[in-house]
Amino acid sequence: MTALPKYEELGFKDVRVEIQGAVAISTLNRAKQRNSFSAQLVQDLIRAFDLFDKDDRIRVVVLTADPTAPAYCSGADISGGWGGLWDPEAEKEGEHAHRDSGGDVTMAIFRCRKITIAAVNGHAVGVGMTALQLPFDFRFVWECAKLAFPFVRRGIAPEAISTYLLPKLIGHSRANALFLSGATVSPTSPSIQPLYHSILPTREAVFPAALKFAHELAENTSQTAVAITKALTWHAADNLEEQHILDSRAIRSLTGNGDAAEGARAFREKRPIRFTDTLSKDLPNWVPWWREIDTRHRKAKL
Amino acid sequence: MTALPKYEELGFKDVRVEIQGAVAISTLNRAKQRNSFSAQLVQDLIRAFDLFDKDDRIRVVVLTADPTAPAYCSGADISGGWGGLWDPEAEKEGEHAHRDSGGDVTMAIFRCRKITIAAVNGHAVGVGMTALQLPFDFRFVWECAKLAFPFVRRGIAPEAISTYLLPKLIGHSRANALFLSGATVSPTSPSIQPLYHSILPTREAVFPAALKFAHELAENTSQTAVAITKALTWHAADNLEEQHILDSRAIRSLTGNGDAAEGARAFREKRPIRFTDTLSKDLPNWVPWWREIDTRHRKAKL
Amino acid sequence: MTALPKYEELGFKDVRVEIQGAVAISTLNRAKQRNSFSAQLVQDLIRAFDLFDKDDRIRVVVLTADPTAPAYCSGADISGGWGGLWDPEAEKEGEHAHRDSGGDVTMAIFRCRKITIAAVNGHAVGVGMTALQLPFDFRFVWECAKLAFPFVRRGIAPEAISTYLLPKLIGHSRANALFLSGATVSPTSPSIQPLYHSILPTREAVFPAALKFAHELAENTSQTAVAITKALTWHAADNLEEQHILDSRAIRSLTGNGDAAEGARAFREKRPIRFTDTLSKDLPNWVPWWREIDTRHRKAKL
Repeated sequence: MTALPKYEELGFKDVRVEIQGAVAISTLNRAKQRNSFSAQLVQDLIRAFDLFDKDDRIRVVVLTADPTAPAYCSGADISGGWGGLWDPEAEKEGEHAHRDSGGDVTMAIFRCRKITIAAVNGHAVGVGMTALQLPFDFRFVWECAKLAFPFVRRGIAPEAISTYLLPKLIGHSRANALFLSGATVSPTSPSIQPLYHSILPTREAVFPAALKFAHELAENTSQTAVAITKALTWHAADNLEEQHILDSRAIRSLTGNGDAAEGARAFREKRPIRFTDTLSKDLPNWVPWWREIDTRHRKAKL
Repeated sequence: MTALPKYEELGFKDVRVEIQGAVAISTLNRAKQRNSFSAQLVQDLIRAFDLFDKDDRIRVVVLTADPTAPAYCSGADISGGWGGLWDPEAEKEGEHAHRDSGGDVTMAIFRCRKITIAAVNGHAVGVGMTALQLPFDFRFVWECAKLAFPFVRRGIAPEAISTYLLPKLIGHSRANALFLSGATVSPTSPSIQPLYHSILPTREAVFPAALKFAHELAENTSQTAVAITKALTWHAADNLEEQHILDSRAIRSLTGNGDAAEGARAFREKRPIRFTDTLSKDLPNWVPWWREIDTRHRKAKL
Repeated sequence: MTALPKYEELGFKDVRVEIQGAVAISTLNRAKQRNSFSAQLVQDLIRAFDLFDKDDRIRVVVLTADPTAPAYCSGADISGGWGGLWDPEAEKEGEHAHRDSGGDVTMAIFRCRKITIAAVNGHAVGVGMTALQLPFDFRFVWECAKLAFPFVRRGIAPEAISTYLLPKLIGHSRANALFLSGATVSPTSPSIQPLYHSILPTREAVFPAALKFAHELAENTSQTAVAITKALTWHAADNLEEQHILDSRAIRSLTGNGDAAEGARAFREKRPIRFTDTLSKDLPNWVPWWREIDTRHRKAKL
C-alpha cells in the first residue's frame, strides 16, 4: 500500500485543501484576483481532484471560495487578451495542439469517483460557471449570486466542455438560452434553477450548508456504490437492453460485497451504518467498461 | 386469429388484473408485505404487460396499489440479505449470468406499446421508484408520498435500468441529486417534480384521477399512432436528418391508414372520434426499425 | 463577393420579410387561413432561413404571426384529408420517397447559424408547435396561447422531427406527456413551461419583447461565436473527452480572431462592443466537423 498523501505538505497555492474526516474541502484562494483562473489554480485543482479520486479516506469533496473573495470565480483573466490562455509549447506544434485548461479541470472533477459538491458562495462568470460548477454532482448557491455564460458576448465559444454537460444537466431549451443570450441571471431564474440542488439566502450560509450535507453523505453512503452509480449514469449504454445487462452486472457484483451486506444488516437492525469497502480494494475488476480516451496532444514534431 | 386472453383465468397472484373497456387495470396485491417485490410479482407483471402489449382490445394500462396497502411499493425485501435476489440457475453459471429482475420488469413495461400510467397512491422506495414508475408514460402521485432512491445508502447500485431512464426523463442534474443523495423527497420537491404528470392531495384521489385520464385517452387516441409516437421518441435516430427520414416514413404510412382518415373526418365534422386500427393489423411492416436486443444469458455450461 | 439578396424583390408570399439592421423579421402572412401550413408557406420559410443563414448582414432572426391572425399557426390544413400533404412526384416512386414538409422547414431553421427567436403571439397547434417553435433558439409566447401536439388524437405521428427535438429540449418526462396526451395546455403548464424563454401577458406584447431582445443580441453577440456555440451544443461528441478536444479547437481558433480581440478590448475599456467577423470570412475551415446528411430522396425510377 502506498503512503497516503499529506495534503498540507504538497505545496498547493491557489487552492487550500483541508481534510475533515472523510470530507475534503478545497477553497479557491485568490480572493484579491476575484478567484480568476490562473495556471497555478488549474494545476492545483487537477492535482487535488486526482488525489481525492484515489485517496480511499475521502468520500465527499466540497469546493468553495474564500468567504472574503468578491466572487466565487470571476472567470479567466483576459486583461491582457486571450493569448495568455495558450500554452507556448502547444503553440509550437500548431492550433490543433491546444487543450483548454478549463476543460482539463472539468475532466479531473468529472473523473473523480467520489461525491463532489460545489458551494457557490459568490458571483460566478465564465469558467466559474463551467469548470467550477458543471462537473460536480451537487451545486449549492447563494440566492443573490450573479451568474453568466458570457462567451458569445466576448467573441468566443463556451469552454470547459460546458456545451457537452449543460444540455445534459438541464436540457437543451435552457442551455441554449443561457449560452446564446450570455445573460446574467440569478439562481432562481427559471432558465437555470434546475442546475442547483440548494439555494441559500446569504453568502455565508452556502458553505456550512454544503459541508453539513457532505458530512451526512460521507457517513451514510458506500464508496463503491457511489462510484458505480456515477459511472452508470454518465457512461450509460446506448439502449435500454445493454444498460440492463450492465446494471445487472453492477448489482450482482455489489450485492456480494461487504458494503451491501452491511447495508442490509443496518437496515434490519435499524442502526447507523458503517461502510468500509474502498475503491482500491473492492471495485469490480470489469470497471471501467467504457473507453477512457487520452485527450493529450501527441507531439509530432522533433 | 388467436384466442384473446381471459385474464381472470390466467392465475395472476401478486397482481390483480381487471379490464374496463379498453383500459387494463393492474393492482399490486401484496398489501400485507407493503407491496415489496417478490418473484411472483415479477412474473405476474412481466406476463401482464406482455399480454397488454399484444391484446388489441387494450389501449391504456394503469398500474396502482391496493388502497389498503401501507405503501405503493416498499422495494425489494432484503430482510434476509441480498442473495434472495439471485437466481440459483444463473449462479451456477457465474455472476455474469445474473439478470436483475427489476430490469426485466422495466423492459416489459417499456416495451408495451400502449399508453401506460403509474398511479402512485402511496410511499415508494427502491424498485417502487424504478421499475414501477420510470418506464411508464405518465405518473400520477399522492402529494404526501415519501419517495426515495436509497441505493447508495444500502451499498448497491440503482437497479431496474433506472440509471438509463431517469437522466433522460428529468435531466442529469436532478437525476444525479436523487441517486447520489439517496434522500427521501416528496413529489413537490424541485428535484423530482418534473417526473410527475399529476400530483393529487389525497391517496384516495390518485387512482380515480388516473383512471379517468386513462379512459379519456382510450377513447380518443389511435393505437397505431401511440405505438409509433412512443417508438419515435425512445428509438430516435442519432441526428436530425435521419429522424426526418424516419418520421417522414411514419407520417406517410399512418396518413394512409384508417385511423388518420377517421381523425381528419371527425375533426371536420366536429364529432367524437372512433379509432379502429389495431397493432396486429395496421402497424407498418418496417416497424421496428431499431435493433431489439435479446438480454437473456446464453447458457454456456453443460 | 456575391450580391446581397434584396428580400423585398424575392417574391415571398405567405411570409413577409423585413430587415431591421442586423435583425430579420419573418411574419406569417396567412391570417385568413389561421396561418395554416401551405406549400407556399413551406417554400417561403425554407428559402428565407437559407438566405438568413448565408447573409452576413443578419445576426438574429425573429419569426412571428400577423397580429390580426386568430392563431400563430393552426397546423396543417386537413379539411381535405391527409393526401394534400403528399408530393405527387414522390408518390410516383412510393411511400419511401415521402419527405414531410414540416421536417424540411425544421431542418432549414435548425441549420440557420444565426440566433433564431419564435415570437408565438397566438394559439399554436401541430406544426405550429413543431416546425415553427422547436428548432428555434428562443421561444417567446403569449400567456393565454392554447398549445397542443394533437397527433395521437388525429391518428398520425408527431411530425417535423419533433420527436427528436422535444425530448432533448425539455426531457422525456414532459415530452412523452405532451405527445401521448395530445392535450391542449397553456405556456405556464408545468409540462411545457421550460420550453419558453419568456411568457408575456398579452398577445400584443410578444413581438415587441422578442424584437427588443433580438436587437440587443444583434448588437452584442459575435456571429462566429454564436454559430460555433450552436454547433457545439447540437453536434456534440459522444463523450466528454472528445468534446474537450473539439471545444479546445473551437476556443483556440476563435481566440485568434478579430471578434475575440474586440471582446477582450471592449471588456477592458468598459465600452460598447463592435463585432465585425462574419461567417463567410471568419468561420474556421474545419467547420462543420459533423456529417451533413442529404435527406432528399434519390430518384430511382426512369
